[in-house]
Amino acid sequence: MTTDATPPAATTAARSALAGMLPPDRLAVDAATLADYAHDDAEWADFSEPVAVVFAETVDDVVAVVRFAADSGLAVVPRGAGTGLSGGANASAGSIVLSLERMTRIVEVNRAERYAVVEAGVINDDLRRAVAADGLWYPPDPASYRISTIGGNAATNAGGICCVKYGVTRDYVLGLRVVLADGSVVDLGRRTAKGATGYDLTALLVGSEGTLGVIVEVTLKLIPLAGREERAVVGSFGSLEDAGRAVAAVADAGIVPSALELIDRTCIEAVDAWQHLGLPHGADTMLLAKVDEPGATGVEHADAISSLMHEAGALGVELGASPEEVDRLFLARRLAYPSLERLGPVLTEDVCVPRTAVPEMLARIQRAAADHDVVIANIAHAGDGNLHPLIIAPEGDDAAKARAKLAFDRIVDDCRELGGTVTGEHGVGLLKLPGARAELGDRVLDLHRAIKDALDPGHVLNPGKGF
Amino acid sequence: MTTDATPPAATTAARSALAGMLPPDRLAVDAATLADYAHDDAEWADFSEPVAVVFAETVDDVVAVVRFAADSGLAVVPRGAGTGLSGGANASAGSIVLSLERMTRIVEVNRAERYAVVEAGVINDDLRRAVAADGLWYPPDPASYRISTIGGNAATNAGGICCVKYGVTRDYVLGLRVVLADGSVVDLGRRTAKGATGYDLTALLVGSEGTLGVIVEVTLKLIPLAGREERAVVGSFGSLEDAGRAVAAVADAGIVPSALELIDRTCIEAVDAWQHLGLPHGADTMLLAKVDEPGATGVEHADAISSLMHEAGALGVELGASPEEVDRLFLARRLAYPSLERLGPVLTEDVCVPRTAVPEMLARIQRAAADHDVVIANIAHAGDGNLHPLIIAPEGDDAAKARAKLAFDRIVDDCRELGGTVTGEHGVGLLKLPGARAELGDRVLDLHRAIKDALDPGHVLNPGKGF
Repeated sequence: MTTDATPPAATTAARSALAGMLPPDRLAVDAATLADYAHDDAEWADFSEPVAVVFAETVDDVVAVVRFAADSGLAVVPRGAGTGLSGGANASAGSIVLSLERMTRIVEVNRAERYAVVEAGVINDDLRRAVAADGLWYPPDPASYRISTIGGNAATNAGGICCVKYGVTRDYVLGLRVVLADGSVVDLGRRTAKGATGYDLTALLVGSEGTLGVIVEVTLKLIPLAGREERAVVGSFGSLEDAGRAVAAVADAGIVPSALELIDRTCIEAVDAWQHLGLPHGADTMLLAKVDEPGATGVEHADAISSLMHEAGALGVELGASPEEVDRLFLARRLAYPSLERLGPVLTEDVCVPRTAVPEMLARIQRAAADHDVVIANIAHAGDGNLHPLIIAPEGDDAAKARAKLAFDRIVDDCRELGGTVTGEHGVGLLKLPGARAELGDRVLDLHRAIKDALDPGHVLNPGKGF
Repeated sequence: MTTDATPPAATTAARSALAGMLPPDRLAVDAATLADYAHDDAEWADFSEPVAVVFAETVDDVVAVVRFAADSGLAVVPRGAGTGLSGGANASAGSIVLSLERMTRIVEVNRAERYAVVEAGVINDDLRRAVAADGLWYPPDPASYRISTIGGNAATNAGGICCVKYGVTRDYVLGLRVVLADGSVVDLGRRTAKGATGYDLTALLVGSEGTLGVIVEVTLKLIPLAGREERAVVGSFGSLEDAGRAVAAVADAGIVPSALELIDRTCIEAVDAWQHLGLPHGADTMLLAKVDEPGATGVEHADAISSLMHEAGALGVELGASPEEVDRLFLARRLAYPSLERLGPVLTEDVCVPRTAVPEMLARIQRAAADHDVVIANIAHAGDGNLHPLIIAPEGDDAAKARAKLAFDRIVDDCRELGGTVTGEHGVGLLKLPGARAELGDRVLDLHRAIKDALDPGHVLNPGKGF
C-alpha cells in the first residue's frame, strides 16, 4: 500500500460529511475494512488506503456519494465483489470506494421478452439460478461467476468459458441505469430485441471500468435454456504443437464448440500433485471441449472433435455425455487455478491472440518463463485465442516477483507482435495500462481522453484506470 | 428540395478547390448527379442540393475531402449506396456528399480466424458470396442486401430478417478504420475473437450515422456456413390476434426461429393482385417462419411451430424443407414491398416494440390508418417486435401526404407508449429526430451532444442527423 496522500484533516472532514449523509451501517472507515476494500484480486497492482468505504443500498446512496466526491475533489472507485484481476477497483489516493455489493435486487425477469433487470450487486450465479426457473439462461460465465457481480461483469465486459460460442457480457447487456459524474441518473439502451436509436452508449459504458459512470442496474438479454445437451471431449497430447493442430482443425471443420479449453503440463502436474486424479501420464497438454447441440448433431460434433484430436496426434481421447461425466472430464480444468495458487501468489495474465497463433504464443510464453526464470502455467480459452499464463512467484521472494513482472510485460509485447490484444476479458485496470496505451496508439487514446473529459470533466470516476 | 443556402460564389470556390485536389472522375457538380445524390431512399425527408459529390476511391480521398470541408466550413455527408430509409444520407445546405461506393475492395477473408476485412463500399451480397467460398457466412441481411454497402450497414447498424436468431450488424463488427473529423485516420477494435482493451469505440461508431467519423474499412466477424438446413413454416390466420398468439407461443416454447415474419391483409392482397400467387383466401395475416437447425432438431422445431400455429387458430399451415420450397413459401414476403410500391410512394415506418406488444401495436396502427384516412400495410419482423408499417399515399396527393405524416408521428408515439424504441433498424436520420429526442430525454441527449462535440467539435460530419 502506498502512502495515503490525503491530508488527515481533509480525510476527517470527508468522513464526517459522509457520516452525516448516510446511515451508519453503510459507511466504514475502520482500518480493517479500509484495508480489505483497498484493492481487488489483482496481484501486485498499486493501491492506496481509501478515505472511506460506502456500501450503497440505493441509487440515492450512489448519487449522494458521487455528488459529494465531485464537490469535494475526491474520487469515486466503484466496486462489485472485488474479484477483478487487473486492479480496476483498486483505491487511489483521496478516493471513496463505492461498493455496490448490497444492491442485490432482481427487479424483473421477463420470460416472454427474455430479459432480466437486476441491480448491480446481484451475483452472476444468483441471476443464473433465478432465470433458470423461467426456462431462461444467461450464458456469460467468468471463472468468478459464483462470487462476482453483474455490475462488475458489465463494467469489465467479463468473458468466460462458454464465450467461444455464446459471446461475452457486452453481447447480453441491453440497457443500463447509470449514475453519471454529476450525480444525474440516466437509463441507457432498451428492453426490445432490436433498436437503433442514438449512439450505443450502453456498449460504450460496458467495459469502461467505472470511468464514465457508476452502473447501478443492468438489463440483460437472456436466451432459452431448453434444447442444450452437453457432451465433453477431452484429449491429452504429447506436445503443445499437437494440441494446437487440433484446435485449428476444429475451427477449420466449422464446428463451434461451447467450450474449448487448454491446460498445460504445469497445470496437469499441479492438479495431480494435489488431487491425484490419475491424469494421463506423459501428457504435456490437455484440450477440453464441450458441444451442446441436442441429439444427433451433438453426437456428430463430439465424434468429429474426437477424430480431429486423434488425427492431430492425441495420446488419448475421452468422451462423456451425462452431466456427471462432463463434470468429471472437466474437473482438471476447474481445479487448475486453485492447484496453482497452492504454489504461491499467482499473477494472472490475460492476452488474446488470433486462434491460429495460440501454439506460437504458448511457445513464446515458455521462452519468457525460461529466460526470466519463473514458473508459468497456462490455462487458455483456446477456441478464442484467449490465454491466461499464470505466473507464480514464491511468497516473499522479491527477486522472483521482479522477474515475474518482466515476464508479464514480455508476454504482453509478444501478444501484440502476434496481432493480439493485451486483455481478452479481464480489462485494463492498472496492470495493463502500458500495454493498452501501446496497443491503442496516441490518436485513439486522444479519443478516450476526449470522451472521458466529455462525460466526467472533473475526473471523479475511477481516475487513472482503464486506458 | 429546399433552396440551396450556400452563396454561389462560395460554392464555385469550393468546387474549384475540390477540382484541384481530386482526379476529375471522382468529382461531380452537374445538376443531374447533384440531384441524384441529394437524398437517400427516405420518402419526404428534407434535403438540399449539395455543393458537390465526391466519389472517393481511396482513404486519402476521404481524408482530403474531410480536411477541406473542416477548413472551409462545409459539412461532409457520408453515403454508401443511398438505400437508407430515414434521410441519414440526405444532403444539408453547404454540404459535400462523400460517396464511398467505389471503395469495393475485399481486403482479406481469413478462414481460420473467421473474419473479413472490406472497404466501406463493398455490397453486402458481394461479401456474402465472397466468404461463402471459404465456408463462411455473414448473417445480417437487410432487405437492401443486394444493393446496400457494408459501410452503410455499419453506419446505420442495419438489421434484417435473420436477426431474430443471428443478431444485427453491430454484433458482427469487430473493428473499423475511420476518418475522423480532423482528417486523422484511426483503427478501432480488433481482429481477435475477444478483447477488452479500452472503450468500445467500434460499437460507438456503429449506428452513429456518419456523425462521428467516416467509416472507410470494416472488419467483420463471420460464422461457419456449414450445418444449417433451412425449413419454412408458413401459416395463414383469420385475424391479427390469432397470428399474435402464435408468435407469443413460439417464443414461450423456447424456439428461436431464424426468421419470423408477418405480413398483413393489405400486403397479401397487393401481392395477389400483382402476381396471382393464389394466396390463401380469407387470410387476414400470414406468419412466415424459418428454422435452420440440421436434422432431427430442425424437423422437431418446424413441427412444433406448425402445431403452435394450428393451436393459435391458423386457417392453414404449409411446411417446406427443400431450398425451392422454402423460397416458394417466402415469395409473398419478398414480393410484399415491391407490390405495395406499385400503389404509390411508400413511407416506411420502423418501430420496435416488445414481442408481446406486437398484436396491440398492429391494432393501434390500424386505428391510426382509419383515423387519418390513409392506407397502411404491415410487414413485420414479428419475432423481434420490429414493425414496418408502410404508409401509402397516391402520387401527387398533398392532402394524403399530410395525413400520412400525421399517421407516421402517431405510430411513433404509440410505439413509445408500449415500451418500444422509435427505430428498430433503419436509424434516426432525419425522419425519427423528434421521436428519438423524446425517447432519449434531455440528459441522454446531453451525452450525445457531449460526445459529438468531443469527436467533431466543428460539426463537420453529417450535422443535424442521428439524435
